[in-house]
Amino acid sequence: MTGKLPTLAIIGGTGALGSGLAAGWAAAGYPVILGSRSAQKAADAAKAISAAVAVRGMDNRAAAEAGEIVVVTVPYANHDAILAEIREAAAGKIVVDTTVPLVPPKVATVQLPAAGSAALAAQRFLGEGVRVVSAFQNVAAHKLQANEAIDCDVLITGDDRAARETVVALAAALGLRGIEAGPLANSVAAEALTSVLIGINRRYKVDGAGIRITGAFATAASHG
Amino acid sequence: MTGKLPTLAIIGGTGALGSGLAAGWAAAGYPVILGSRSAQKAADAAKAISAAVAVRGMDNRAAAEAGEIVVVTVPYANHDAILAEIREAAAGKIVVDTTVPLVPPKVATVQLPAAGSAALAAQRFLGEGVRVVSAFQNVAAHKLQANEAIDCDVLITGDDRAARETVVALAAALGLRGIEAGPLANSVAAEALTSVLIGINRRYKVDGAGIRITGAFATAASHG
Repeated sequence: MTGKLPTLAIIGGTGALGSGLAAGWAAAGYPVILGSRSAQKAADAAKAISAAVAVRGMDNRAAAEAGEIVVVTVPYANHDAILAEIREAAAGKIVVDTTVPLVPPKVATVQLPAAGSAALAAQRFLGEGVRVVSAFQNVAAHKLQANEAIDCDVLITGDDRAARETVVALAAALGLRGIEAGPLANSVAAEALTSVLIGINRRYKVDGAGIRITGAFATAASHG
Repeated sequence: MTGKLPTLAIIGGTGALGSGLAAGWAAAGYPVILGSRSAQKAADAAKAISAAVAVRGMDNRAAAEAGEIVVVTVPYANHDAILAEIREAAAGKIVVDTTVPLVPPKVATVQLPAAGSAALAAQRFLGEGVRVVSAFQNVAAHKLQANEAIDCDVLITGDDRAARETVVALAAALGLRGIEAGPLANSVAAEALTSVLIGINRRYKVDGAGIRITGAFATAASHG
């Protein structure tokens, strides 16, 4: 990814996580398109983001068509429906799935879908032509929105190494350490951790617990 | 748990994790019994541990009978067989399951069992009279054995709060921060993380990556 930065379509871009990611990437110079069920709502949200580049708003399908990389930031209850909406437009692209399969009311209890994880379900549904990368499940959306320092690593899983590396760069653009965490099957870990963190926030009265991988290592180092 | 410390039976106590845990707890003053397939091997391993208290070795079944808390530290391939061996002896006790469901050769790929996790499978098999607590999956066994500083939190899950708190105390006795991470369903997170950490060790050439939960909180604080 030398030269021009890719255009990012943030599906569900008016939500807490989506708007936080959008603002961060726009500030870092990425062309960003917000997608929403309502094109008008997306346009209004786009205007509210002050950025190094123009941010546009569109309906989700149009956003997915216009983006070079598609980032899915929608509630789990809408996951299937939104994927169906963007499937054609996402063909051949990287889809970054941030979805956590929370099932209310017990959001602090891990309840993974039959496919193993939301990201695995997305890959199965979108087909082999799409490179699904799972990331950003453990980042506190309200801290991202408030542009606060975030003490949290981003576990990045996916079956395509180049796609994983692209998302490591997207994390770095937000000031976050992205860590390649293996194949998409490993998305189970990050998705399950979110329920654990929600429970820890409640139990120990923490404002946005996160995770760090410990051990001396450089994510930029050559690795095989 | 005031007064006398409970006797800990470490099933598979001659392995890397089991012997590391045993040495740490024995040094902290817990009465420890090592269990092994071979009572002789267990007795030899017990002699090798220098401790504040006498450490004994027995076959797994006898160890589970003699222990007040039973800690299972066996390879996943032996998990079912060993649970069958200790089921009767474990009735009414806390069973701390440290098992990670690694399936060689792809140990860096999350491959959870149909029950959801090894600990959930153990709870189902041992029955309601046993309080299964899942913990210690992410701690590097070789660091524990070498008595090195370990930069890793211990995620502790289980459906019984008093049992979880007991295991928080067991982690503290080893100098580790135990964090109550919710119901046993959440054991999925810690078990899945181990494959992620194995992959990170390889990919980034780390000696025993671990995890830390971030955010300002005191595990000793009163929490509900």
